[in-house]
Amino acid sequence: MKLRLPGPTEVPEHIALSGSKAMINHRGPEMAELVSSISSDLQTCFETKNEVHILTASGTGGLEAAIVNHISASDEVLVITIGIFGNRFLQLVEMTGAKPTVLKYDFGHAANANDVEKVLKDNSHIKFVVMTHNETSTGTTNNQIADIASIAKSFGCLVIVDAVSSLTAMSVEVDKWGLDVVVSGSQKGWMMAPGLAFISISEEAWDIQKKCTTPRFYFDLLKHKASLANGQTPWTPAVSLFYQLETALKDIKKEGMNNIFARHAFCAEKTRSSIKEMGFDLLADEGYESNSVTAIKAPDDLNVAQLLKVARTKYNTIFAGGQGSLGGKIFRFGHLGYVNENDIDMGLDALKSSLNEIGFRK
Amino acid sequence: MKLRLPGPTEVPEHIALSGSKAMINHRGPEMAELVSSISSDLQTCFETKNEVHILTASGTGGLEAAIVNHISASDEVLVITIGIFGNRFLQLVEMTGAKPTVLKYDFGHAANANDVEKVLKDNSHIKFVVMTHNETSTGTTNNQIADIASIAKSFGCLVIVDAVSSLTAMSVEVDKWGLDVVVSGSQKGWMMAPGLAFISISEEAWDIQKKCTTPRFYFDLLKHKASLANGQTPWTPAVSLFYQLETALKDIKKEGMNNIFARHAFCAEKTRSSIKEMGFDLLADEGYESNSVTAIKAPDDLNVAQLLKVARTKYNTIFAGGQGSLGGKIFRFGHLGYVNENDIDMGLDALKSSLNEIGFRK
Repeated sequence: MKLRLPGPTEVPEHIALSGSKAMINHRGPEMAELVSSISSDLQTCFETKNEVHILTASGTGGLEAAIVNHISASDEVLVITIGIFGNRFLQLVEMTGAKPTVLKYDFGHAANANDVEKVLKDNSHIKFVVMTHNETSTGTTNNQIADIASIAKSFGCLVIVDAVSSLTAMSVEVDKWGLDVVVSGSQKGWMMAPGLAFISISEEAWDIQKKCTTPRFYFDLLKHKASLANGQTPWTPAVSLFYQLETALKDIKKEGMNNIFARHAFCAEKTRSSIKEMGFDLLADEGYESNSVTAIKAPDDLNVAQLLKVARTKYNTIFAGGQGSLGGKIFRFGHLGYVNENDIDMGLDALKSSLNEIGFRK
Repeated sequence: MKLRLPGPTEVPEHIALSGSKAMINHRGPEMAELVSSISSDLQTCFETKNEVHILTASGTGGLEAAIVNHISASDEVLVITIGIFGNRFLQLVEMTGAKPTVLKYDFGHAANANDVEKVLKDNSHIKFVVMTHNETSTGTTNNQIADIASIAKSFGCLVIVDAVSSLTAMSVEVDKWGLDVVVSGSQKGWMMAPGLAFISISEEAWDIQKKCTTPRFYFDLLKHKASLANGQTPWTPAVSLFYQLETALKDIKKEGMNNIFARHAFCAEKTRSSIKEMGFDLLADEGYESNSVTAIKAPDDLNVAQLLKVARTKYNTIFAGGQGSLGGKIFRFGHLGYVNENDIDMGLDALKSSLNEIGFRK
């Protein structure tokens, strides 16, 4: 079965198998060595000198950690949302009791730095900017993120970013852009199974954590910081997934980050141009299309559920539908992680054959 | 390396390898089938008709879910603690803002049903009883749990139990004993890798969740309930660990729960009698020794750190030390999960040889 999803992605066999190595003591020296090596490699991928912590949780757990460790009920927060995952971040901010200012864009549009500047000028008490880098639900990338972060920093804000589906698929220059808190998830670009979240924390963010009054325990990052100093995690980690991560990071290092970004850009561009040639429109505005996943507008006479079913049952290929109110209105073609030109070609063939099979003609 | 720890335990090779199967769509029919089969088998192990939910998190995440979904800041709660994990439960209750009544026993003692009855008689507003079934830190089992639960129910309390290290190692009769919320963790008796927590929820507990005001998101069990109806989890699950769980549950079913309990009882009894023959005292009171792990008092002239190091480096065996204030005062010999008489014999041999090596004589 070919997974043309925006995650979980396919996992190379040797990475999957590395997860089956013999269990070790999570409080022993082998684990400390593993954690230390992984953390350092993660810093390279995050392009940061900040500590990167590993949580046994899915990406959403990482997002929760990003919020509950920093935002207190009394804080003023700007949440920028361009889709379903931006809305999830918003829900998490609201959970803390904070009453956020929301800058919301319609599906397919990316955030504009000028809009952010205006909001921050008008609301001088805002001290946090929360945003999604790559919005999986709409196949849209916030390409103005560097400018937005720069503006946010100039207003003294802490910048909290969901990079769950962008990290390792496209460059996320955590330190250069000034991103204080950045989250990713193992089932996206990392070529491994789901179950781990990664989170980088700046010095400024650690300081804020010490004052943050939002209750937290499992996701308490200060506990993770104290444990990392001993090469441990505060709670028993998902050791087999740490093994997979170690192997995946070796592969990433070997291929090289720039080559990986180029591969993703190539696969994404080939997908987009082929799909446009087939007569479809993309959901994302031009210049903001994601290199992780392409969201395709479904014409009124295309039955998306039927398309996905035929692709799965007859052509062994899983595409994603639309989430929430986008259900039935779009379908999505994933191209991140362990993916090459051949996968794209096979995915496009499966798509064409499935459209044919259900009698859809543009 | 032989892990004589109270978790993570060794994982049989075929279970470990089953985690490397090809990735699937976590929103597709294959996943729904997997989740449905696993959930049903978990109910058998929990001896319950209640729904059992699977969280991508370690056991502590399961404990957090057990608390934040039920206990609100205004609730009166009895927390019974007999060790480090009972204290962790207490911290989680305090996190909600509730001001619990605490019934605390010294390390090695188990809770007494009469004490619980007295507290509940004196505090008629208490509506929750929170307790650990098997205290891993002290090798002590709360064997009066059925009586305690019965008393708690007679006072109209919801009973919340940490069975992280007891489930599948000893009988936990969730329905018969009237346990409303019961948590376990994958790296304990389940013969698989860490990273999943399991939690059973009674009808009464679901009703309380609807009224609970404690903020929660990742661990929101009502979201899990809504997703389970579609054979899904609200957030991307750790699919490879679900594969391992499916295989482990097949093995558990094949061996039979009663045979598994008998195997654990036999291994534990052999460990205890042999260690007592060697002249050591156990930490747990007689009649309350755990069948998951044996905690051994370290005589003043025994250097525990040295013992553990020699066992690891010369005899390929990992024993556990004491946690928190028990550090240096005890060591622990794990016998749960994938363990048989031969493992116990090898563990005892390694222990004797290590004691010899460091020149310790009783």
